[in-house]
Amino acid sequence: MKIDNPSQLGALEAAKLIASGHLTSEVLVRSCLERIEARDREVGAWISLEADRAIAEAKIRDSESARSPLHGVPFGVKDIIDAEGYRTGMGSPIYDDSAPLLNDAACVALAKDAGMVALGKTVTTEFALRTAGKTRNPHRLTHSPGGSSSGSAAAVADFQVPLAIGTQTGGSVIRPASYCGVVGFKPTFGRIPRAGVKSVSESLDTVGVMARNVQDAAVFSAILEGTTVAEFSSSQERPRFAFARTPAWDSLSPAAQKVGRDVVEHARASGASVVEIDLPPIFRDALEAQSCIQTYEATRSLAFELRRRPDQVSKALKDYVSSGSAMKRSTYDEARNIQASCRAALWPLLNDFGALLTPAAPGEAPANPSDTGSPIANAIWTMTGAPVVGVPGLLGSTGLPVGIQVIGPSGRAAATLSHALWLSEVLGK
Amino acid sequence: MKIDNPSQLGALEAAKLIASGHLTSEVLVRSCLERIEARDREVGAWISLEADRAIAEAKIRDSESARSPLHGVPFGVKDIIDAEGYRTGMGSPIYDDSAPLLNDAACVALAKDAGMVALGKTVTTEFALRTAGKTRNPHRLTHSPGGSSSGSAAAVADFQVPLAIGTQTGGSVIRPASYCGVVGFKPTFGRIPRAGVKSVSESLDTVGVMARNVQDAAVFSAILEGTTVAEFSSSQERPRFAFARTPAWDSLSPAAQKVGRDVVEHARASGASVVEIDLPPIFRDALEAQSCIQTYEATRSLAFELRRRPDQVSKALKDYVSSGSAMKRSTYDEARNIQASCRAALWPLLNDFGALLTPAAPGEAPANPSDTGSPIANAIWTMTGAPVVGVPGLLGSTGLPVGIQVIGPSGRAAATLSHALWLSEVLGK
Repeated sequence: MKIDNPSQLGALEAAKLIASGHLTSEVLVRSCLERIEARDREVGAWISLEADRAIAEAKIRDSESARSPLHGVPFGVKDIIDAEGYRTGMGSPIYDDSAPLLNDAACVALAKDAGMVALGKTVTTEFALRTAGKTRNPHRLTHSPGGSSSGSAAAVADFQVPLAIGTQTGGSVIRPASYCGVVGFKPTFGRIPRAGVKSVSESLDTVGVMARNVQDAAVFSAILEGTTVAEFSSSQERPRFAFARTPAWDSLSPAAQKVGRDVVEHARASGASVVEIDLPPIFRDALEAQSCIQTYEATRSLAFELRRRPDQVSKALKDYVSSGSAMKRSTYDEARNIQASCRAALWPLLNDFGALLTPAAPGEAPANPSDTGSPIANAIWTMTGAPVVGVPGLLGSTGLPVGIQVIGPSGRAAATLSHALWLSEVLGK
Repeated sequence: MKIDNPSQLGALEAAKLIASGHLTSEVLVRSCLERIEARDREVGAWISLEADRAIAEAKIRDSESARSPLHGVPFGVKDIIDAEGYRTGMGSPIYDDSAPLLNDAACVALAKDAGMVALGKTVTTEFALRTAGKTRNPHRLTHSPGGSSSGSAAAVADFQVPLAIGTQTGGSVIRPASYCGVVGFKPTFGRIPRAGVKSVSESLDTVGVMARNVQDAAVFSAILEGTTVAEFSSSQERPRFAFARTPAWDSLSPAAQKVGRDVVEHARASGASVVEIDLPPIFRDALEAQSCIQTYEATRSLAFELRRRPDQVSKALKDYVSSGSAMKRSTYDEARNIQASCRAALWPLLNDFGALLTPAAPGEAPANPSDTGSPIANAIWTMTGAPVVGVPGLLGSTGLPVGIQVIGPSGRAAATLSHALWLSEVLGK
């Protein structure tokens, strides 16, 4: 059996072929590197890549018996996350080629301990905030891949690597996944350790993953959490979804609103129950609260860069944090209280449902690579700490992808993934 | 006016003399360096010290007008926290002399931006857990300074530096402060940013400070939080304290129990109301929950060291985390629920009081420098995220210090500091 294009395989699919002797980690890694060589001059998903290091790691993996269901599979690492042998560039000139080589972040070490291979570092916006890197949307190179996990989404979408790690503070995993048409998964807040991940906003920063199918995302995330994947399948008798327009609804493009309406129809046509619900009144303040928390905390977490290297910080970032410097502690405290109330409200709200559906982005990818888009569709759910799966399969009016968010209550990731898997099968038909 | 021993000055006191031209930052820094030169061969509080760098920084501060109430004042940095020009040793051979020089952690950058001078790195136990460094208790060199912020406590107690940064996951600020007879302050969870601080247990790790008086601790902490210090004073008409024996009481030494009883008497004799209260039943599970959370999270946060550099990890640490690797996710989730319940219970419990009093350590410092003591007196309060001030002033049966913890509800640090200041004045009489 000769595998024609290993880089096209899903992660679990590839790992099964490696385990059964039909593929090697080395061949898979080399196939990804060839794809990158062929495509990345245009896509620009990678900021640093040590091909020899990745091949050497793959050879070691090939000499071992499988340590996990993803043994031998390569993954990309967003460049605000440390990986051994790389500097962490953070999308900032402050961390240029003179920055030191570092050790693995905890999540990268957990992946390697599971027999996975770090392929390289993917492009991030400046400190995972607004200023874009070089990455283009692989579906249409004139368009943005989204951000801040720009390179992770684009590399997975473009079959350059089957899996990548991203982070989300506002909408930085789910939005680029939506723009690039891949699965994004942001587990419950705090589940994947953040040691070795650049801290921007401690109450919000959440590590997540990009994949080309829901099962790959679920298993990769479990490995990064240092646990085993919970059993889940799509074989529910009759999935029970809630659908909410959310405070962001009026800011979504007509195309995104249509995708929201369409998914309700698709789900019902395939046998799911979908009940349109209203979010509790406290959610009206959620977007502003998320923005307050992020700004206040980023202003402080980035104190070294902002106060001691201001000449190397973008004007956009300086403008962004100037509001955080002026913000009163009491405003921040009030925002944290709203965060706690929204978190507490989510469990009872979703008690009768398997998951909540809403569009995953405000529309299709912006027609400007330096505009990574707005987190407005995602920020509330990041703030609640809820597990969110971004499921692709629908298109906007110009033919670019628009994803659906499948949201569960904190700690109920298995049920959320199970509903996301069901939906992805429906939308994939 | 000639200041005889600037290193003996409190931080605010020194800053006032600098601001009024009676002292310079350079003279103060040189005085601290002389004290270190004279004493630190025995005390062993510092793991790395760049004297020239500190003097150069002080000279720059002397050329500026005051940027904060602590302009020109030097501070020590626990060696799990990054500071520019230093490697971060973490008390581990993994981070030896080949480790790279790093940038400032956010809290260090905030202190420098306030005109303060980083004097050097203070000794930590291995990854702020159990395996001790070289530090001795300056009051009795055969004894432990406590840990994990061993060097920070010892350096401040020994007049080698007026202020130092520490961290607490179990009892790592308040306990060494108690053993060394200084003020420790652990602000509300999440208030001092953790960017650039080694992550051990994300739900518990809290940055705090050591000082020789309550006011110094309050102002230093406010600077590290990126805010201004709240107004507080000790001039309450009649302070209202609660006193609780807590689930740790039976594990305290007779000396610590006596200190607990004595402080109630002292406070009442000086006009305070002190009401003995019982903690709600949920607190019975608090110590075990804190231990579960710390172990589960440390096992994952330290994945690089434990899984990819196991030969350079102490046996004690390996033994400690083996329980974390075996722990079920559901056990951890249950512990996090107990944490949330204890947090929620603290506000109503302390509603009628200014603060809660309990002994700050299980007894006097252990007579073995490699035994940094037990966090049993502190772990519950770290878990609740409450602001805690460790106040010195009382002695155990062998004449070594035993501190008192002054505990407030989360977010009410000003009232807590105010009660701590009142108590410190009573005990200092």
